[in-house]
Amino acid sequence: MKAFACIAAAATLLAMAAPVSAQFAKPEDAIKYRQSALSVMGTHFGRVGAMANGRIPFDAKVASDNADIVASMAKLPWAGFVPDSDKGNTKAKPEIWTEQAKFKESSDKLVAESTKLAAAAKTGNLDTLKTAFAATAGTCKACHDVYRKE
Amino acid sequence: MKAFACIAAAATLLAMAAPVSAQFAKPEDAIKYRQSALSVMGTHFGRVGAMANGRIPFDAKVASDNADIVASMAKLPWAGFVPDSDKGNTKAKPEIWTEQAKFKESSDKLVAESTKLAAAAKTGNLDTLKTAFAATAGTCKACHDVYRKE
Repeated sequence: MKAFACIAAAATLLAMAAPVSAQFAKPEDAIKYRQSALSVMGTHFGRVGAMANGRIPFDAKVASDNADIVASMAKLPWAGFVPDSDKGNTKAKPEIWTEQAKFKESSDKLVAESTKLAAAAKTGNLDTLKTAFAATAGTCKACHDVYRKE
Repeated sequence: MKAFACIAAAATLLAMAAPVSAQFAKPEDAIKYRQSALSVMGTHFGRVGAMANGRIPFDAKVASDNADIVASMAKLPWAGFVPDSDKGNTKAKPEIWTEQAKFKESSDKLVAESTKLAAAAKTGNLDTLKTAFAATAGTCKACHDVYRKE
Protein backbone atom coordinates (compact mmCIF):
# COMPACT_ATOMS: atom_id res chain seq x y z
CA MET A 1 0.00 0.00 0.00
CA LYS A 2 2.82 2.34 0.93
CA ALA A 3 4.64 1.49 -2.31
CA PHE A 4 1.50 2.18 -4.30
CA ALA A 5 1.02 5.56 -2.62
CA CYS A 6 4.63 6.35 -3.39
CA ILE A 7 4.26 5.42 -7.07
CA ALA A 8 1.04 7.43 -7.29
CA ALA A 9 2.77 10.46 -5.79
CA ALA A 10 5.69 10.09 -8.17
CA ALA A 11 3.30 9.84 -11.12
CA THR A 12 1.52 13.00 -9.99
CA LEU A 13 4.83 14.84 -9.72
CA LEU A 14 5.86 13.64 -13.16
CA ALA A 15 2.56 14.76 -14.64
CA MET A 16 3.05 18.19 -13.05
CA ALA A 17 6.61 18.42 -14.30
CA ALA A 18 5.88 17.35 -17.86
CA PRO A 19 4.45 20.63 -19.19
CA VAL A 20 7.33 22.47 -17.56
CA SER A 21 10.05 20.48 -19.28
CA ALA A 22 8.09 20.79 -22.51
CA GLN A 23 8.00 24.55 -22.12
CA PHE A 24 11.62 25.32 -21.27
CA ALA A 25 14.57 23.18 -22.31
CA LYS A 26 16.77 24.61 -19.54
CA PRO A 27 16.13 26.53 -16.29
CA GLU A 28 18.13 29.46 -17.80
CA ASP A 29 15.56 29.65 -20.60
CA ALA A 30 12.78 29.98 -18.04
CA ILE A 31 14.71 32.71 -16.20
CA LYS A 32 15.31 34.62 -19.43
CA TYR A 33 11.66 34.23 -20.40
CA ARG A 34 10.22 35.59 -17.15
CA GLN A 35 12.75 38.43 -17.01
CA SER A 36 11.97 39.40 -20.60
CA ALA A 37 8.23 39.34 -20.02
CA LEU A 38 8.58 41.40 -16.82
CA SER A 39 10.87 43.86 -18.63
CA VAL A 40 8.46 44.43 -21.53
CA MET A 41 5.60 44.80 -19.06
CA GLY A 42 7.65 47.26 -17.01
CA THR A 43 8.38 49.44 -20.04
CA HIS A 44 4.70 49.82 -20.88
CA PHE A 45 3.69 50.18 -17.24
CA GLY A 46 6.28 52.94 -16.92
CA ARG A 47 4.63 54.84 -19.75
CA VAL A 48 1.24 54.67 -18.05
CA GLY A 49 2.94 55.76 -14.84
CA ALA A 50 4.62 58.73 -16.50
CA MET A 51 1.13 60.02 -17.33
CA ALA A 52 -0.40 59.04 -13.99
CA ASN A 53 2.40 60.91 -12.24
CA GLY A 54 2.30 63.93 -14.56
CA ARG A 55 5.83 63.49 -15.93
CA ILE A 56 4.46 63.48 -19.49
CA PRO A 57 1.17 64.92 -20.78
CA PHE A 58 -1.87 62.63 -20.49
CA ASP A 59 -2.88 61.10 -23.81
CA ALA A 60 -5.87 58.80 -23.30
CA LYS A 61 -5.19 56.72 -26.43
CA VAL A 62 -1.51 56.17 -25.59
CA ALA A 63 -2.37 55.36 -21.97
CA SER A 64 -4.97 52.84 -23.06
CA ASP A 65 -2.70 51.19 -25.64
CA ASN A 66 0.05 50.79 -23.07
CA ALA A 67 -2.30 49.60 -20.32
CA ASP A 68 -3.69 46.95 -22.69
CA ILE A 69 -0.16 45.64 -23.25
CA VAL A 70 0.49 45.63 -19.50
CA ALA A 71 -2.67 43.59 -18.92
CA SER A 72 -1.65 41.05 -21.57
CA MET A 73 1.97 40.82 -20.42
CA ALA A 74 0.95 40.45 -16.76
CA LYS A 75 -0.26 36.92 -17.49
CA LEU A 76 3.04 35.67 -18.88
CA PRO A 77 6.01 35.77 -16.47
CA TRP A 78 4.68 33.30 -13.90
CA ALA A 79 5.05 30.25 -16.14
CA GLY A 80 8.79 30.96 -16.02
CA PHE A 81 9.13 30.28 -12.30
CA VAL A 82 9.71 26.57 -12.88
CA PRO A 83 11.48 24.15 -10.52
CA ASP A 84 15.28 24.55 -10.45
CA SER A 85 15.15 28.08 -11.83
CA ASP A 86 15.97 29.64 -8.45
CA LYS A 87 19.71 29.70 -9.15
CA GLY A 88 21.83 31.55 -11.68
CA ASN A 89 21.13 35.00 -13.12
CA THR A 90 18.04 35.72 -11.05
CA LYS A 91 16.89 37.86 -8.14
CA ALA A 92 14.09 35.42 -7.34
CA LYS A 93 14.00 34.44 -3.67
CA PRO A 94 13.63 30.76 -2.69
CA GLU A 95 10.31 31.63 -1.00
CA ILE A 96 8.73 31.67 -4.48
CA TRP A 97 9.10 27.90 -4.55
CA THR A 98 8.45 27.21 -0.86
CA GLU A 99 5.32 29.43 -0.76
CA GLN A 100 3.87 28.64 -4.16
CA ALA A 101 0.24 29.28 -3.26
CA LYS A 102 1.09 32.67 -1.75
CA PHE A 103 3.26 33.57 -4.73
CA LYS A 104 0.47 32.62 -7.11
CA GLU A 105 -1.92 34.77 -5.12
CA SER A 106 0.48 37.71 -5.59
CA SER A 107 0.75 37.18 -9.32
CA ASP A 108 -3.02 36.73 -9.63
CA LYS A 109 -3.43 40.11 -7.92
CA LEU A 110 -1.26 41.78 -10.55
CA VAL A 111 -3.28 40.16 -13.33
CA ALA A 112 -6.52 41.37 -11.72
CA GLU A 113 -5.29 44.92 -11.06
CA SER A 114 -3.71 45.34 -14.48
CA THR A 115 -6.99 44.24 -16.09
CA LYS A 116 -8.69 46.97 -14.05
CA LEU A 117 -5.96 49.38 -15.15
CA ALA A 118 -6.71 48.67 -18.81
CA ALA A 119 -10.41 49.27 -18.16
CA ALA A 120 -9.63 52.47 -16.24
CA ALA A 121 -7.46 53.73 -19.11
CA LYS A 122 -10.38 53.22 -21.49
CA THR A 123 -12.52 55.70 -19.52
CA GLY A 124 -10.18 58.50 -20.62
CA ASN A 125 -10.37 59.97 -17.11
CA LEU A 126 -6.96 60.79 -15.65
CA ASP A 127 -8.07 60.49 -12.01
CA THR A 128 -9.52 57.03 -12.65
CA LEU A 129 -6.26 56.06 -14.32
CA LYS A 130 -4.22 57.40 -11.38
CA THR A 131 -6.17 55.30 -8.88
CA ALA A 132 -5.86 52.14 -10.95
CA PHE A 133 -2.17 52.80 -11.60
CA ALA A 134 -1.49 53.14 -7.87
CA ALA A 135 -3.36 49.91 -7.13
CA THR A 136 -1.43 48.03 -9.81
CA ALA A 137 1.91 49.49 -8.71
CA GLY A 138 1.05 48.35 -5.19
CA THR A 139 0.81 44.73 -6.33
CA CYS A 140 4.25 45.00 -8.03
CA LYS A 141 5.81 46.40 -4.87
CA ALA A 142 4.14 43.96 -2.49
CA CYS A 143 5.46 41.01 -4.51
CA HIS A 144 8.95 42.50 -5.00
CA ASP A 145 9.25 43.25 -1.27
CA VAL A 146 8.73 39.62 -0.38
CA TYR A 147 9.99 37.63 -3.37
CA ARG A 148 12.78 39.66 -5.02
CA LYS A 149 16.34 40.00 -3.75
CA GLU A 150 17.83 43.50 -3.49
CA MET B 1 15.35 80.04 -48.29
CA LYS B 2 18.02 77.41 -47.72
CA ALA B 3 18.17 78.31 -44.05
CA PHE B 4 14.40 77.99 -43.77
CA ALA B 5 14.44 74.56 -45.44
CA CYS B 6 17.14 73.51 -43.05
CA ILE B 7 15.19 74.68 -39.99
CA ALA B 8 12.05 72.94 -41.31
CA ALA B 9 13.99 69.71 -41.80
CA ALA B 10 15.44 69.98 -38.30
CA ALA B 11 11.98 70.60 -36.85
CA THR B 12 10.64 67.52 -38.66
CA LEU B 13 13.47 65.42 -37.31
CA LEU B 14 12.88 66.74 -33.80
CA ALA B 15 9.17 65.95 -34.05
CA MET B 16 10.00 62.42 -35.16
CA ALA B 17 12.54 62.01 -32.38
CA ALA B 18 10.32 63.33 -29.59
CA PRO B 19 8.16 60.23 -29.03
CA VAL B 20 11.32 58.16 -29.13
CA SER B 21 13.08 60.02 -26.35
CA ALA B 22 9.85 59.93 -24.38
CA GLN B 23 9.68 56.16 -24.78
CA PHE B 24 13.23 55.16 -23.89
CA ALA B 25 15.51 57.12 -21.59
CA LYS B 26 18.64 55.53 -23.10
CA PRO B 27 19.44 53.60 -26.30
CA GLU B 28 20.34 50.57 -24.09
CA ASP B 29 16.77 50.59 -22.77
CA ALA B 30 15.44 50.38 -26.31
CA ILE B 31 17.83 47.51 -27.11
CA LYS B 32 16.76 45.62 -24.00
CA TYR B 33 13.11 46.23 -24.79
CA ARG B 34 13.22 44.92 -28.35
CA GLN B 35 15.36 41.92 -27.37
CA SER B 36 12.98 41.07 -24.53
CA ALA B 37 9.92 41.34 -26.76
CA LEU B 38 11.55 39.21 -29.48
CA SER B 39 12.62 36.65 -26.87
CA VAL B 40 9.12 36.27 -25.39
CA MET B 41 7.68 36.04 -28.89
CA GLY B 42 10.28 33.43 -29.82
CA THR B 43 9.43 31.26 -26.83
CA HIS B 44 5.76 31.12 -27.76
CA PHE B 45 6.49 30.77 -31.47
CA GLY B 46 8.76 27.85 -30.62
CA ARG B 47 5.90 26.10 -28.86
CA VAL B 48 3.68 26.45 -31.92
CA GLY B 49 6.58 25.21 -34.03
CA ALA B 50 7.13 22.16 -31.83
CA MET B 51 3.58 21.10 -32.69
CA ALA B 52 3.79 22.11 -36.35
CA ASN B 53 6.96 20.05 -36.66
CA GLY B 54 5.65 17.07 -34.68
CA ARG B 55 8.18 17.33 -31.84
CA ILE B 56 5.33 17.46 -29.31
CA PRO B 57 1.74 16.25 -29.68
CA PHE B 58 -0.68 18.70 -31.29
CA ASP B 59 -3.00 20.36 -28.76
CA ALA B 60 -5.28 22.82 -30.53
CA LYS B 61 -5.98 24.90 -27.41
CA VAL B 62 -2.29 25.22 -26.48
CA ALA B 63 -1.36 26.02 -30.09
CA SER B 64 -4.01 28.71 -30.26
CA ASP B 65 -3.07 30.27 -26.90
CA ASN B 66 0.56 30.45 -27.94
CA ALA B 67 -0.20 31.75 -31.43
CA ASP B 68 -2.34 34.52 -29.92
CA ILE B 69 0.60 35.62 -27.79
CA VAL B 70 2.90 35.53 -30.84
CA ALA B 71 0.47 37.75 -32.76
CA SER B 72 0.33 40.26 -29.90
CA MET B 73 4.06 40.26 -29.27
CA ALA B 74 4.86 40.63 -32.99
CA LYS B 75 3.67 44.24 -32.85
CA LEU B 76 6.05 45.32 -30.09
CA PRO B 77 9.77 45.00 -30.88
CA TRP B 78 9.92 47.51 -33.75
CA ALA B 79 9.43 50.55 -31.53
CA GLY B 80 12.75 49.60 -29.95
CA PHE B 81 14.80 50.23 -33.08
CA VAL B 82 15.26 53.89 -32.25
CA PRO B 83 18.07 56.15 -33.52
CA ASP B 84 21.46 55.54 -31.87
CA SER B 85 20.50 52.04 -30.73
CA ASP B 86 22.66 50.38 -33.40
CA LYS B 87 25.67 50.10 -31.08
CA GLY B 88 26.29 48.14 -27.89
CA ASN B 89 24.79 44.79 -26.97
CA THR B 90 22.95 44.23 -30.23
CA LYS B 91 23.10 42.12 -33.38
CA ALA B 92 21.14 44.72 -35.32
CA LYS B 93 22.79 45.64 -38.61
CA PRO B 94 23.15 49.32 -39.60
CA GLU B 95 20.91 48.62 -42.62
CA ILE B 96 17.93 48.73 -40.25
CA TRP B 97 18.45 52.47 -39.97
CA THR B 98 19.59 53.14 -43.55
CA GLU B 99 16.72 51.12 -45.10
CA GLN B 100 13.93 52.06 -42.71
CA ALA B 101 11.08 51.61 -45.18
CA LYS B 102 12.31 48.16 -46.18
CA PHE B 103 12.82 47.16 -42.56
CA LYS B 104 9.33 48.34 -41.69
CA GLU B 105 7.97 46.29 -44.57
CA SER B 106 9.70 43.22 -43.12
CA SER B 107 8.28 43.78 -39.66
CA ASP B 108 4.82 44.47 -41.09
CA LYS B 109 5.03 41.10 -42.86
CA LEU B 110 5.65 39.34 -39.55
CA VAL B 111 2.71 41.12 -37.97
CA ALA B 112 0.47 40.08 -40.89
CA GLU B 113 1.65 36.46 -40.98
CA SER B 114 1.46 35.99 -37.20
CA THR B 115 -2.10 37.32 -37.26
CA LYS B 116 -2.87 34.66 -39.89
CA LEU B 117 -1.08 32.11 -37.70
CA ALA B 118 -3.37 32.93 -34.77
CA ALA B 119 -6.41 32.53 -37.06
CA ALA B 120 -5.03 29.26 -38.44
CA ALA B 121 -4.50 27.92 -34.93
CA LYS B 122 -8.14 28.64 -34.13
CA THR B 123 -9.29 26.25 -36.88
CA GLY B 124 -7.89 23.35 -34.88
CA ASN B 125 -6.54 21.85 -38.11
CA LEU B 126 -2.90 20.81 -37.88
CA ASP B 127 -2.20 21.12 -41.61
CA THR B 128 -3.58 24.66 -41.66
CA LEU B 129 -1.38 25.44 -38.67
CA LYS B 130 1.68 23.95 -40.37
CA THR B 131 1.21 26.11 -43.47
CA ALA B 132 0.75 29.28 -41.42
CA PHE B 133 3.69 28.42 -39.18
CA ALA B 134 5.98 27.98 -42.20
CA ALA B 135 4.84 31.31 -43.66
CA THR B 136 5.46 33.10 -40.36
CA ALA B 137 8.84 31.44 -39.85
CA GLY B 138 9.73 32.56 -43.38
CA THR B 139 9.22 36.20 -42.40
CA CYS B 140 11.49 35.75 -39.33
CA LYS B 141 14.23 34.21 -41.44
CA ALA B 142 13.98 36.72 -44.29
CA CYS B 143 14.41 39.60 -41.86
CA HIS B 144 17.20 37.92 -39.85
CA ASP B 145 19.12 37.10 -43.04
CA VAL B 146 19.29 40.76 -44.00
CA TYR B 147 19.18 42.69 -40.74
CA ARG B 148 20.75 40.53 -38.04
CA LYS B 149 24.47 39.94 -37.56
CA GLU B 150 25.73 36.35 -37.16
